[in-house]
Amino acid sequence: MKKHNFSAGPCILPQEVFLKASEAVMDFNNSGLSILEISHRSPAFVEVMEEARSLALELLGLEGKGYQALFLQGGASLQFIMSAYNLLEKKAAYLDTGSWSAKAIKEAKLLGEVEVVASSKDKNYNYIPKDYEIPADVDYFHMTTNNTIFGTSIKDFKKTDVPVVCDMSSDIFSRQIDFTYFDLIYAGAQKNMGPAGTTLVVVKEDILGKVSRDIPSMLDYKVHIGKDSSFNTPPVFAVYASMLNLRWLKAKGGIQAIEKENEKKAKLIYSEIDINPLFKGFAHKPDRSNMNATFNLTDDSLKERFDALCKDAGLNGINGHRSVGGYRASMYNALPKKSVSALVEVMDELERKA
Amino acid sequence: MKKHNFSAGPCILPQEVFLKASEAVMDFNNSGLSILEISHRSPAFVEVMEEARSLALELLGLEGKGYQALFLQGGASLQFIMSAYNLLEKKAAYLDTGSWSAKAIKEAKLLGEVEVVASSKDKNYNYIPKDYEIPADVDYFHMTTNNTIFGTSIKDFKKTDVPVVCDMSSDIFSRQIDFTYFDLIYAGAQKNMGPAGTTLVVVKEDILGKVSRDIPSMLDYKVHIGKDSSFNTPPVFAVYASMLNLRWLKAKGGIQAIEKENEKKAKLIYSEIDINPLFKGFAHKPDRSNMNATFNLTDDSLKERFDALCKDAGLNGINGHRSVGGYRASMYNALPKKSVSALVEVMDELERKA
Repeated sequence: MKKHNFSAGPCILPQEVFLKASEAVMDFNNSGLSILEISHRSPAFVEVMEEARSLALELLGLEGKGYQALFLQGGASLQFIMSAYNLLEKKAAYLDTGSWSAKAIKEAKLLGEVEVVASSKDKNYNYIPKDYEIPADVDYFHMTTNNTIFGTSIKDFKKTDVPVVCDMSSDIFSRQIDFTYFDLIYAGAQKNMGPAGTTLVVVKEDILGKVSRDIPSMLDYKVHIGKDSSFNTPPVFAVYASMLNLRWLKAKGGIQAIEKENEKKAKLIYSEIDINPLFKGFAHKPDRSNMNATFNLTDDSLKERFDALCKDAGLNGINGHRSVGGYRASMYNALPKKSVSALVEVMDELERKA
Repeated sequence: MKKHNFSAGPCILPQEVFLKASEAVMDFNNSGLSILEISHRSPAFVEVMEEARSLALELLGLEGKGYQALFLQGGASLQFIMSAYNLLEKKAAYLDTGSWSAKAIKEAKLLGEVEVVASSKDKNYNYIPKDYEIPADVDYFHMTTNNTIFGTSIKDFKKTDVPVVCDMSSDIFSRQIDFTYFDLIYAGAQKNMGPAGTTLVVVKEDILGKVSRDIPSMLDYKVHIGKDSSFNTPPVFAVYASMLNLRWLKAKGGIQAIEKENEKKAKLIYSEIDINPLFKGFAHKPDRSNMNATFNLTDDSLKERFDALCKDAGLNGINGHRSVGGYRASMYNALPKKSVSALVEVMDELERKA
């Protein structure tokens, strides 16, 4: 039985992406060679890389607007220090909305002054702070649009003239935003973009080249741009699978179309959380994420029964993160609505039998 | 037709690794889930990571000797700066045997003084310098054991008391060396270890923690060791495929067994290069690599005919690197001897028909 996979990342991708990726491991494009054994300088792979880069910009509506897309390695965690290396000359402003924001702040402090404009740590990050201003005298402003662990999401973006840097790992390609608001977007692939092993970086070229420090080659966005995202051997398979997934999204109608599906899925689960007296949502309602729904049992003694029902229904990956506890249903682009229905059905069953 | 794949990397892996990896993309261990959608914190993947780390140490004969194995991202290119970050306090010594050594030197210079003890750049790196001493007053000595582009290989290792750091990307797991000679070994996976997308780092723990600088978390070996090589999301699929490949090597009898096969393959091609008047080896004979044989036509007008014969015989990836020209046959662990025979047959045919 194919499971309902609510894993927070790595996470479900479309079945057709799995199928094509699996076939390419045996024989890539009828070349007689595996995708794992071809040169990253071969015309066939250069085409894959170019298509992936161009699809990323196209889907975000950033083509022809001075942006470059790169497929790098190291995850968002490497971007925490890499973005600071490239942009932090003196002082940067950060919004602290969760564990990943806090990690980004920690790394940036190694290279300059960091002003935390607001934090929701006081309530274990269950809300998005809104009462702050973006200083005008900073090199950039950094935010995390979706907080995977806590299930919150930033919905309003304050006007500013400073460059905006964003960790969009867990909501990129899932909802419509005016992406031109951002000057640097980075995202580990393993949620809405592809398998673990590559990191999308979308950067507006004109913000680069303004810091005075020497940047190690591998941490220098300009170096990677100059080599068309193949300065050294890229993670060939992860880029290929991501490209397949971006193709799938484009064929579905892009972000506009998937956003509607994501909204339906989110409404389904949040309605159940709010109606069912056995469950309680964790995140502040107006800040709820459409990607990760976090919730707890109101009566912990029901945990064993609920877990057993989930297992019987083939639900995978709904345990909450240790820093929140309870449950988390991650509903990325590729998760079918019927998986959310299956979860809601189990929640309902628990109530009926309780 | 399955091709004879002489690609310099990414390169051929055993057919059974392709098969198992391909199956796991559809269904990993009968879990009903793809290897691409499982959590990196799931017990099933933690087991994969632990087996990969332990196989790496076991095959190198380094188990229980104070070493740790890590599967990171970013390739050898990120290791150029990462190794310096962790080890370079004041001065380091480097042996310059090719383009990759030169790149390692360039990055290290950002963090401290670099003494180049010898270089073969004077002859386009066609030999390994032997007339040098390793200074006693440096933080470490860095070398590249196999030079993929030039087809040379270091065979003698000078005694020293300083830590030895080594880029072993293109010959790790291919020949027997006393690996305890090294304190830090790094290797991009995409030759003898697995697909592109992960980097093996083997480090002796007691050399760490001695520099005074603050190290960014993602560049700190101690951070990765402390998190069992899963500080952030590891490149799940690349680690899995590498683990399959290390299992294959162990089942074959380990490095001792594969070295014999590699020697046979190398003898076959080098004998032909030396006997056939239409070809000339590039690398100085005593320094020839068993992994990458570099050679040129003595008469360039035969190029078109030779290339056509190679194509007809299904030979892939034998073009030389642009900085050497001519041809390069990469003969990594998984390349069958019959592929080398097929190449030799074509070289022979060219002579017979010339």
